[in-house]
Amino acid sequence: MVDIAPHTNTLGSVPPASTSIEAEVDGHLDEAAQGITPSVDVASLRWQLLGTWADVRLKAREFTKRPDLHRIEGQTLAEQRERVRAQMQILASEGEVNRPFPRAVGGLEDNGGNITAFEELVAADPSLQIKAGVQWGLFGSAVLQLGTSYHHTTFLPDILSFTVPGAFAMTETGHGSDVASMATTATYDERTQEFVLNTPFRGAWKDYLGNAGQHGTAAAVFAQLITRGVNHGVHCFYVPIRDENLNFLAGIGGEDDGYKGGLNGIDNGRLHFTDVRVPRMNLLNKYGDVAEDGTYTSSIDSPGRRFFTMLGTLVQGRVSLDGAATVASAMGLAIAVTYGNQRRQFAAGSDTDEEMLMDYQRHQRRLIPRLATTYAQTFAHDDFLVKFDSVFSGKTDTDEDRQDLETLAAALKPMSTWHALDTLQEAREACGGAGFLAENRLVGLRADLDVYVTFEGDNNVLLQLVAKRLLTDYGLKFEGADAGVLARYAVGQAADKAYHGTGRRSLAQTGRDFGSTARSVHELRSPAVQRELLTDRVETMIADIAGKLRPASKMSKKAAAALFNSQQNELIAAARAHAELLQWESFTRAVDAVADPGTKQVLAWLHGVFGLGLVEKHLAWYLINGRLSPQRAQAVTAYIDRLIARLRPHAQDLVDAFGFAPEHLRAAIASGAEAERQDEARAYYSTLRASGTAPLDEKTLKRGAQKR
Amino acid sequence: MVDIAPHTNTLGSVPPASTSIEAEVDGHLDEAAQGITPSVDVASLRWQLLGTWADVRLKAREFTKRPDLHRIEGQTLAEQRERVRAQMQILASEGEVNRPFPRAVGGLEDNGGNITAFEELVAADPSLQIKAGVQWGLFGSAVLQLGTSYHHTTFLPDILSFTVPGAFAMTETGHGSDVASMATTATYDERTQEFVLNTPFRGAWKDYLGNAGQHGTAAAVFAQLITRGVNHGVHCFYVPIRDENLNFLAGIGGEDDGYKGGLNGIDNGRLHFTDVRVPRMNLLNKYGDVAEDGTYTSSIDSPGRRFFTMLGTLVQGRVSLDGAATVASAMGLAIAVTYGNQRRQFAAGSDTDEEMLMDYQRHQRRLIPRLATTYAQTFAHDDFLVKFDSVFSGKTDTDEDRQDLETLAAALKPMSTWHALDTLQEAREACGGAGFLAENRLVGLRADLDVYVTFEGDNNVLLQLVAKRLLTDYGLKFEGADAGVLARYAVGQAADKAYHGTGRRSLAQTGRDFGSTARSVHELRSPAVQRELLTDRVETMIADIAGKLRPASKMSKKAAAALFNSQQNELIAAARAHAELLQWESFTRAVDAVADPGTKQVLAWLHGVFGLGLVEKHLAWYLINGRLSPQRAQAVTAYIDRLIARLRPHAQDLVDAFGFAPEHLRAAIASGAEAERQDEARAYYSTLRASGTAPLDEKTLKRGAQKR
Repeated sequence: MVDIAPHTNTLGSVPPASTSIEAEVDGHLDEAAQGITPSVDVASLRWQLLGTWADVRLKAREFTKRPDLHRIEGQTLAEQRERVRAQMQILASEGEVNRPFPRAVGGLEDNGGNITAFEELVAADPSLQIKAGVQWGLFGSAVLQLGTSYHHTTFLPDILSFTVPGAFAMTETGHGSDVASMATTATYDERTQEFVLNTPFRGAWKDYLGNAGQHGTAAAVFAQLITRGVNHGVHCFYVPIRDENLNFLAGIGGEDDGYKGGLNGIDNGRLHFTDVRVPRMNLLNKYGDVAEDGTYTSSIDSPGRRFFTMLGTLVQGRVSLDGAATVASAMGLAIAVTYGNQRRQFAAGSDTDEEMLMDYQRHQRRLIPRLATTYAQTFAHDDFLVKFDSVFSGKTDTDEDRQDLETLAAALKPMSTWHALDTLQEAREACGGAGFLAENRLVGLRADLDVYVTFEGDNNVLLQLVAKRLLTDYGLKFEGADAGVLARYAVGQAADKAYHGTGRRSLAQTGRDFGSTARSVHELRSPAVQRELLTDRVETMIADIAGKLRPASKMSKKAAAALFNSQQNELIAAARAHAELLQWESFTRAVDAVADPGTKQVLAWLHGVFGLGLVEKHLAWYLINGRLSPQRAQAVTAYIDRLIARLRPHAQDLVDAFGFAPEHLRAAIASGAEAERQDEARAYYSTLRASGTAPLDEKTLKRGAQKR
Repeated sequence: MVDIAPHTNTLGSVPPASTSIEAEVDGHLDEAAQGITPSVDVASLRWQLLGTWADVRLKAREFTKRPDLHRIEGQTLAEQRERVRAQMQILASEGEVNRPFPRAVGGLEDNGGNITAFEELVAADPSLQIKAGVQWGLFGSAVLQLGTSYHHTTFLPDILSFTVPGAFAMTETGHGSDVASMATTATYDERTQEFVLNTPFRGAWKDYLGNAGQHGTAAAVFAQLITRGVNHGVHCFYVPIRDENLNFLAGIGGEDDGYKGGLNGIDNGRLHFTDVRVPRMNLLNKYGDVAEDGTYTSSIDSPGRRFFTMLGTLVQGRVSLDGAATVASAMGLAIAVTYGNQRRQFAAGSDTDEEMLMDYQRHQRRLIPRLATTYAQTFAHDDFLVKFDSVFSGKTDTDEDRQDLETLAAALKPMSTWHALDTLQEAREACGGAGFLAENRLVGLRADLDVYVTFEGDNNVLLQLVAKRLLTDYGLKFEGADAGVLARYAVGQAADKAYHGTGRRSLAQTGRDFGSTARSVHELRSPAVQRELLTDRVETMIADIAGKLRPASKMSKKAAAALFNSQQNELIAAARAHAELLQWESFTRAVDAVADPGTKQVLAWLHGVFGLGLVEKHLAWYLINGRLSPQRAQAVTAYIDRLIARLRPHAQDLVDAFGFAPEHLRAAIASGAEAERQDEARAYYSTLRASGTAPLDEKTLKRGAQKR
């Protein structure tokens, strides 16, 4: 991610950093041990976490406080759908959904701000967020990005106003992530100058489409474009599907997807087409067009590149899910840490007071590393958003930029969406039975976020795209290198192996001895050493896989596929390692940007938990590959434990800095009710003891009798 | 688990094993490489998996096929509760819920069979299972286990017939797992010979109680028994709470817990008591009684031991959750593997056929190790059930047996309930968007099973009980040993460190060189070596922790608590290692018991995936502690990959052997519908190609043009 430049806040530039994170970690780490406890400047940290579009995010947070936008737990399917539909009207009229659209149709042409505001909807109701994403981020965006001015002026106003709720009809029952293989056809009929849409078999039904189950009156339908006997691949068509009474139009049929694991405010459904005719003009023709006589033309000659260009315009879905998942993780931690700082259980070291949950080592280990990851993701997401905005605003919109953005999206979205499920679940368990009640939000958020890991690109499929890109870059770098050089490279850990380009972090330090297992624990604290360890792992894994895949070029297609398949696990592991490195880099830059010394120190500790946590997670790799000695490896865990203990007093500040109001969290257990209950209980016992009427304890009596 | 003897099936004894697992793994591992593919005898394997009470389990499976017992997805809260209430009536009249109860009240006194049948209810609806568990397993069981003949004859008949739905009122809002600290009081009033129940503050409200929200008319209420000014600790009282119109009786109040993350067929709720009077006889007085004049007597002198004895009678909840969670994991895998064997996606190695999901390496890695763990848990659960039955039937019911059973429960229930959530989630993701639809069961099962990890004892709390038991045993063994000996022990890895007693596996092989890193890969395949590695890890961890905790005895209570807290993570890790070892031992014995050679070989591979999977999971530990060399460590993963590839052709057989019928799985994607869709699609394309009317592909045309 080297070419994502440090950026400035839209409300003003970030103050220069007083000290580097390295100095912070190395120099001040032992202050706590000396009795000096740094303090977090929560207000400034909150501002930093709000990110580049802080003003838009704050405005969106005010907006999502509205009770009429909030999810009501336990509603029926019909009630949920109707509530979210009504909320969509509110969004359409008051929610600035026009942000990313062209000024010509009343838009603001603000892509980064649009995604920022969208992400915050998750606090109101993830169903609302995703239904809005379907309407404006997918359906509307397809018309905007794949269509031309005719489509913009004809269709966008009604889409923006939600007068025409629409489905994004890409996925088929038989083909999810493999979009290119979809089976729906749109065949051009020269005589009538229409496209004729057909669904050839059950597996080609469009499926899981938001708005298709009930409310949608139109759809952006992806289909194989066939004209003059040639299939030009997947294109998108604007297709009306229901009349004003919400009955299907002729030739169109479908099914409701019914009840789901979450997001039940959205009417997902299936669609199929039988000789459905739409005018030639309904082809969204930015990247491929058909003339009246059926001649196909495209500005992009290669069908493969054309396909990926069209799909690439839809990357914003992944951008926004990365952000929304990170917001949801932050909410989960805000609830669990707040409760953990009020709830007491078991009297371990005292006769009268029970221990606070957050004081238990295990509780800290469950929540604080996840807090560190959530911080890393918050900062990485902001860098990602800046890159996205830069491409979509046209500021830096080359083919290379688009590819880099795709790779970033494919790397970060899986990490943050899986992290959200993991964090919300751990938060729910950390709150015990109370965490299982809908009134405390955690189970609902988790259920709704579940599908984020497989929609807009299945996480495992996306990570393979990342790995392929890493392999391609690796191959480009060594094009022409003979097998001997490559083999040496794969095992030799040569120092000079800089990658370039976004999405791939380069190792700046050359000539260091990676093989040394004699690093001191002190060295492990250094961000430079952490970077080296993390970067080395990505590069070594990729070089190793590349070496193993080398024979594929001389193999049959089938044998090559089998060889590639034998490396699938490793490829995904390498892609994850790469994504973790990207997050680590963003976190590192963010700590460097902090001015307040106390905040900087606490964040440096949190950064250490994240960075060394990654090393700990992959400790076996570092040991097997001789990057860490057993002694140093053992020190990693011990050191993380020390950092966690130091962070414990700051846990509340760190979740408060996310800046959620009670209207966002809406969790009974994070409302202060538990603290009140604890106070009431302690006051009761204290009064009882003072009154002299408290019953004696049989245990105490027995102990007394034994002594006598 | 050494003293859980191999047991016989209630329908007949297990045939003697033809060869040991060791011979199987070592001798036959390369058969597949030689082109010989063993086959699984699904019928006999199914029989083995049904366990000791196979006949009861089969009968229960027939029973749960009834549509009127099945969960209907998407019902409202009220509909779900009413449906489950009606199902409870069916269970009461036809479900043999009398199994564990005394013959005097019409029972069968069959504890093992009772839990077996109960576990299978999870396939009908987890809400029904848990509501049944509340009524007969907790409420009824409290009356049975804590009460005496008066209570049995007076209360059990109406409990069995569900005429009196009851709550098990133990947990309070302020105290979950810390039962001893509950605040509800039951004070004896000599004048009226009644107990007076009171809830002193909000935190003392009983909470999360099934049947308390709506249907319960009585409750088994746990409260601090106070008589003659002395608190004798927690006892249980039979307390009517609602009249026939379901209105609260005088002095009783409560709240509905409302919508939850799952199990919404159960009416969980809160209760509180204000001067509620019950007759003296309503004290369930098996372990502690109050005479008319208020004199307290108990057969157990120590209040601590009395408390744990009373609680110990309720261990069957944990036994049954271990089994139910394992059944749910098996269901999830049956659905996902079946779908993975029908679904195709992406054409990697062929121009016409797409790849089957189960043929992807990543897909195999996601599902097959979880299948191995589910097998291990199935066998471990059966051993556990045999132990439970032996104790509860009175066959081997000593204090030591009860403690062993508690330790087993505390070790196994956390592993299997967490595994169920992990497996159901992975299964859902492996089925993509289809996995998120309620019609495919996975999301509903996961949502319902979620609370299994924190109820009936929070998993993290239970694992600490296990660790404390391991430490106690360790301490007993070395009682009187001086600090020097102990310290040497903690670091020295002496060979002779046999533990004895249930729940703690002993290392049989003495004098082996644990420190040797020169083991061959071949050696790692051997169950004896795996046992050594797994046992060594538990023992070393415990010895290490014991060494660190040694100074605690000379510390203040507060300092000792802090020292103990600093080892909490490690304690839990050691307890998990112990639980994994128990599961591994059961799996090992089960493979040894297989007669059919093909089945035995496939199970030996699956066992290898489980055993070496545990080593892989903790690889850093083995490397840091010098138990494996980096070369051997690397070989572990490579070898697991080979085993998984060999198991792939048997994956369907291995899930079919769980023996679920379509009426149990009820998942559209596991019904064969996907295979039909795939066949239809392929037939369509095949016909199209044959017809000569298929459109040409632009890509193919372009490639042709380039060649010319």
